[in-house]
Order: sequence, then C-alpha cells, then structure tokens
Amino acid sequence: MKNYRIGIFGLGTVATGVAKILKEQSHIYAEKFAVSFEIVQVVVHNLDKKRDPKTSGLTISDDPKTILDNPDIDIVIELVGGKTAAKTIIEKSLKAKKHVITANKDLIASQGRKLSRLASENHVGLFYEAAVAGGIPILRALSTSLASDDIEQINGIINGTSNFILSQMRQKQMSYHDALTLAQEKGFAEADPTNDVDGIDAAYKLQILADFAFGKQINQKDIQMGGIRTITQTDLQDVAELGYEIKLLANATIIANKLALSVEPTLVPKDHPLASVQNENNAVFVTGKYAGGLMFYGPGAGEFPTANSVVADLLSLVNSGDRPAVFNSHPDSEVSLAGPKDRIASRYIVLTVTNRPGAMHKLSAFFLMSNINFRNIRQYDPIGETTRVVIITYPASDAQLNPVKTTIKQARGVKIIHEFKLLIEPKGGQRD
Amino acid sequence: MKNYRIGIFGLGTVATGVAKILKEQSHIYAEKFAVSFEIVQVVVHNLDKKRDPKTSGLTISDDPKTILDNPDIDIVIELVGGKTAAKTIIEKSLKAKKHVITANKDLIASQGRKLSRLASENHVGLFYEAAVAGGIPILRALSTSLASDDIEQINGIINGTSNFILSQMRQKQMSYHDALTLAQEKGFAEADPTNDVDGIDAAYKLQILADFAFGKQINQKDIQMGGIRTITQTDLQDVAELGYEIKLLANATIIANKLALSVEPTLVPKDHPLASVQNENNAVFVTGKYAGGLMFYGPGAGEFPTANSVVADLLSLVNSGDRPAVFNSHPDSEVSLAGPKDRIASRYIVLTVTNRPGAMHKLSAFFLMSNINFRNIRQYDPIGETTRVVIITYPASDAQLNPVKTTIKQARGVKIIHEFKLLIEPKGGQRD
Repeated sequence: MKNYRIGIFGLGTVATGVAKILKEQSHIYAEKFAVSFEIVQVVVHNLDKKRDPKTSGLTISDDPKTILDNPDIDIVIELVGGKTAAKTIIEKSLKAKKHVITANKDLIASQGRKLSRLASENHVGLFYEAAVAGGIPILRALSTSLASDDIEQINGIINGTSNFILSQMRQKQMSYHDALTLAQEKGFAEADPTNDVDGIDAAYKLQILADFAFGKQINQKDIQMGGIRTITQTDLQDVAELGYEIKLLANATIIANKLALSVEPTLVPKDHPLASVQNENNAVFVTGKYAGGLMFYGPGAGEFPTANSVVADLLSLVNSGDRPAVFNSHPDSEVSLAGPKDRIASRYIVLTVTNRPGAMHKLSAFFLMSNINFRNIRQYDPIGETTRVVIITYPASDAQLNPVKTTIKQARGVKIIHEFKLLIEPKGGQRD
Repeated sequence: MKNYRIGIFGLGTVATGVAKILKEQSHIYAEKFAVSFEIVQVVVHNLDKKRDPKTSGLTISDDPKTILDNPDIDIVIELVGGKTAAKTIIEKSLKAKKHVITANKDLIASQGRKLSRLASENHVGLFYEAAVAGGIPILRALSTSLASDDIEQINGIINGTSNFILSQMRQKQMSYHDALTLAQEKGFAEADPTNDVDGIDAAYKLQILADFAFGKQINQKDIQMGGIRTITQTDLQDVAELGYEIKLLANATIIANKLALSVEPTLVPKDHPLASVQNENNAVFVTGKYAGGLMFYGPGAGEFPTANSVVADLLSLVNSGDRPAVFNSHPDSEVSLAGPKDRIASRYIVLTVTNRPGAMHKLSAFFLMSNINFRNIRQYDPIGETTRVVIITYPASDAQLNPVKTTIKQARGVKIIHEFKLLIEPKGGQRD
C-alpha cells in the first residue's frame, strides 16, 4: 500500500467535494489500486470563512508555504481559480516536483501547453479533467481512447448557463430576460452574466479542447465569438419550423486542413444528439476520422461531478507507473488557423426589410453579388412598415458573406438581425 | 523508440481496419508515445478467401503456431470471434506472456474475469474495449474516470440492429416486419435476427458492462430477457402520446443494495438523452453516486470505429509503464442479485379485454389483489369483441405483479399483450 500526501489550495464547493469523496471512498483506492490518500494540509485565503462541517478534520492555514515548502506533500490540488495566484501556486508546485491537479479553466486555457512542459521538465504530472465540462471525462477520452485518431471536429455545449436559458425559452416560451432571471434565481447565472451568455466561459474550455484535439495553444482572440442575448422566442420558433434548435456551441472544425474556431449560436438539426441536450447539462460531440461521431454527455458543473473528475485525475496520476504521466498526449502541431475564405458553412440569416415592392428583388441582389445561393426563404406578414425575412443559404464563406453584410449595413430599408451558422456535419468514421 | 511486434488472428472487417489504421497513423505513435507497431504475422482460417487489397503486404498463414510459438511477438490481437477457438488462442497467448487484445464479446461475457486473472498471473494485459458498443470508449471510462465512483445504474442501447428497427418503425410508421427487412437489406440484421431482436447480443455486452461497473461475473441466465418482435406501430404511438419512447435497453440497476439485470423493451421519457438515440447508434447512460448521469454515445459497430477501439487498447497497453496493465479495475464484489421482491419499477401493461359491462371492474380487481396502484389508464374503442386497455402503474415489484399475471392467464376474457418497465431514473450526483 502506497500512501500519497495531498495539499489542497482552496476549500470551496469542489474542494469540499474532493475531501468528502476521498474520505468516503478510501476502501476503493486500497482494493483497486493499493494506494491511500491523505489530505495533510489545506490553504485558504480567509481562515474565518464558515466551512462545511464535514471538512472539520482538515488542517487549514492561510500560508501557501505550509504546502509549497512541505517536502512530504506529493500532490497539490489547486482549486482557488483565477489566473495570478493560481499560476504562482502551480509553477512553484511543479518546480518543487509535486504533481498538480487543477480545475482552473481560465489559466489552463492560455497557459496549458506551457505549464504541461514545465511539469514534464520536472518529471511530474499536471492534470485538469475538471477544467472542461465538469463531470464529463472528455479530456481523458481525447488523450487515451482517441489518441490514435485524427480529430476532424469538436462541437460542444460547454456552458450550462446559456444552455439552461435557451432550453427554458424553448420549453416554456419564456423571453430571454425571464429565462436569465430564472437562471439567476437557481444560482446558474451570476448577477453579471456576461461570461456565460456572451460565450467567454465556453471559449476558455474550447481553447483547452482544441489543444487536446489538435495540439495547438489557441488565443481567445482567434475564436469567432457570438452570444445569445439577442435571441428571441420568434427566432426559436422560426428555426423549429425549419427543423432545427439554436444552441450556443463551441466549435473547432478542420476545413481544408485549417482550424476554424468559434463560440456562437448554431443551428443544430433536431435529430442530432446535441439538439436534445437540455438545461444545465453539457455535451461534447467529437468527430474522428476513424471513431466516427461520439458524444460525451453529463453534468457540466456541481460539487460531486466536478470533484469526481479531480479524484479521477488523482487515480490516473498514481496509476501511471514509473514514467511522468502526460495528460495531454497531443504533440505541438503546425495546423494553421482558418481565414475568412476557409470558414464555409450554411447560414441562417434574419433580416427586416421595409415593406414595399421590389424589396426582395433588392435584397436578393446583395447576395447574388457574392454568388450566395438560397436554400430556404420565408417572408412573414409585415408588422408595421417592416417585414421579417428568414433565409437559409447553401454553404458560403465569411469572405463571400462579409461584403454582403457591409453593403446591407450601408443600404436603406434593410437590416440584418442575426447571422448564425448551421452545424457542419462531417462524415467521420466513413473513410476507406 | 520502442518497437512492438503484433500477431493478428482473423482478417475480417475489423482486423483489416486495424491494419489500415496502424499503417496510416504510424507517425502519431512515434510522435506521441515514441513507439512503433509492426504486424509480423496474421493467421486466418481459410487462406484462399479474397482479401481487401490494402492488406496485401501482410504475412498470412493458417497455422496458429506461427503466432503462438513466435517468441518475438509481444501482442496478440484476437479477432476470429466465437468461443472455442478464441478461448484457446487467448489462453495460450497469455500463458506465453503475450498481451492480448480482443473484440470477442461472447467469450469475454462469460470468461472475462477468469481470463483477466490469467493475464494478471502472467504479468501481461488483456484489453477488450471493442467488445462493447464498438467505437464508444465506455469500458475505459468505467475503469479510469469512474474508478472512484459508486456506480448505481447502467442503461444502454447496445444493440444497433434492434435500435435501427425501432427507430425506423417510429420515424416511418413501418411495421416490425418491414423494418426488419430494411435492416437485413442494409446489412444491419442477419437472416436469422434472433441474437439481435431477442436481446441476446445486448445481454453479452451487459455482462461485460456489469463486470466493469459492479465487479461481478454475470451469468446470462440471471438477466431478465425480453425482445422487440411483438412491438407494433400501435404500441409506439400509445407510448408517444404518454410522453415516452420504447427502446430495447440493457439495464443494470442497484436496488436496495442488490443488482437487477435485464435486457428488455423499456419506456424512456422522451426528454431523456437515451430517447433521442436513433438508428444503428449505441449509447450507454451511466449513473454514478458522484459523477451523476453521464452518457456515452456513438457508433456501436463498423470497420473503423471498432478498429479504433482496438488500437486505443494497444496504446493503453504500451503506455501503462512497467506494471502489468489492468483493464477492468473493479475488484471481485459480493453484490447479490435482485430477486422478484427487489425488482421494483413502474410498469406499462397492455391488455385486451372482452367488451362487456364489468370488464374494467374485473380487471382492476386483479391488480388490487397485489395492491398495485394505477397512474394512467386508457381504454380504446373496441375492435370487434375486444377492447385494448393500456395501463401505467406506480412502482411495483415482480413479486407483486407475478401473481396478477398468473391469475390473468387463467381468467377468461382478458389477456396481457405486453408488460414493459419504465426507465428508473436515479438521483445520481445529488448526494450530500
């Protein structure tokens, strides 16, 4: 029986969950893997904060050195979040030859590859399954079961708050505002929901997913971003009639050997597995050249689901034998990022047009200019002086569409309300 | 760079897929894991069979000794299927200290635990991800990411043929017979579809899943079995009106600390993720005490998805360091099997009743005898002399229901057409 000594930074929900699981399941570690875990030290920012009574047996201090300078601690679990303090903790721990497990998506999103190198140089592991999609074991799947595959595409519902809002709007015919208020009441959304509803939180997770799938550290500025604030009940009903659901998707797609990244409202065919992911649940759909289309579904947050991912990392770490464990098995890749010509997709475009003869003739001329073909057009009865026009196009690139959008912006009597992409459905697993 | 030498038994679809992936992806193994793989020998039953031209570079013989007695071969991939010959191959390989990878569900279902012990005694690995749900990495997830969790329930759509038939019946209002014929035309179903439509194939896979999740080698006779042959268009429409879909589910559920196993048509609420799994796709929904409800979705068969699972096993094996790799991390468990009193679920019961006064009064007396409460009753307009009655009950055990069924069998003017369970929805991930 090998005993591992653990130091934990932070004692919020997830850390409390980790402490409970380690206590309740200790017989499992002994039976399955002949190991035991001991939390020897917890470091918190504020010693006076009220704690879950179940954590009462823990040794708590507010001095990071009680972990970092303790040579008996083998493994550090970083659960304070944020970028600055966490970065120092992780760097110092790795340099002190301690393994590190973290759930810190913000930091790993931009520093994952660099910190993994630091871990590797110090012959220790850096694991962070909990940083993406809470309880869903997607990173380990990409790093092990899909290690030999060529990933072609990842599409994820990886922000529970925005998915909850869109689900409630759809199920209960609520407005965006009412659904947001409900999410805030339930504790799913913060007072300022920006990070969730504008796609920033999902973008952090997409950066990490893209690193595992494509071997590239992504900058958030290279992700095309769109949020859900302007989506209305009318939009949801329009797309439902056309056979789609609107989901805030994080997308990483290889198109013509280039990598296109976005977080944006995306039309998903209603029979696609992502369309049925409801409320605060998350799901990541991965398409591999060999494995085909796989979906990993589950809770994207929560005390125990997230804590379970941290504990799974702990077990991976201690079971990885004598060589330094590598969490992200994808080597650095030279894949280049897609430009406007490469970003090809069918589009869902909603416009308002002044209600007069020739309006559609004028509108269609704008799209003809870029040789964009319509697959579906609906013009609705006018409300006041304007009429709503909904168009689905055949696949067209940003390079084709951008001048159309610019022209329409300058034109009178026509306005673009939305321009969303349709989910690209790759062929995966069909190769010969 | 470490080179591994491989011998493959069988050269059907999956073996051909493995050979292609190993060839196409060799740069990946070198870059990611500093390993290379070489297929030094293939053994087939019939040397004269026509082969995929892409396998032309392989050394093929019909003598098992060319692999088993070759001391240079480190890893054996068994893809001949069946129980007898495969068992000999696997046992001899393990005793010769060769790692073994197989996709053989029939054999592993009954011998998995025994063969794994043999592997362990010989300090080699025995891996078989491809044996359950083809391309879906469910066994590795149970063995790693969920290793610390207490699994409460597994519900799987793990037979693509029967799911294809039910999906086509539902989508296209086809009869069972027409949908089966379509499945046979598409190559999803065999001329004799018994193994698929009566749940036998799914039961093999459930045996393996249960071993990973609950640490118990299950006998197929301990699985309650039901098939889809008698399901009609009327049934699918009845349950749809009530808010359900009928799926052939493989179920392993802990009820009152006992394990209940079944493969049977099960009513799944239409907003449950399993309800939206269409056609030949598979999905396994796992509920853990800590992780909550996770679903793993993807192709349950096919050349490349299944071959990808074999190759993933290969990578796990060579990456497991210096200790013998263990695929199924669950130790032997003492969990006992559920009896009739433990098998508690809500029931969907379809009956025909002779159309006369007092019929419902008599019918309801039978259920009152066992104190079974109705949640939902529908009696339809009579056809000829009989009328169709559809009942959904509150949770009741087999022990309660069995005497009712016996009594009805002996009674005049009433007949049970179907008795299916409703999916049990556990609380998973909600603990404190």
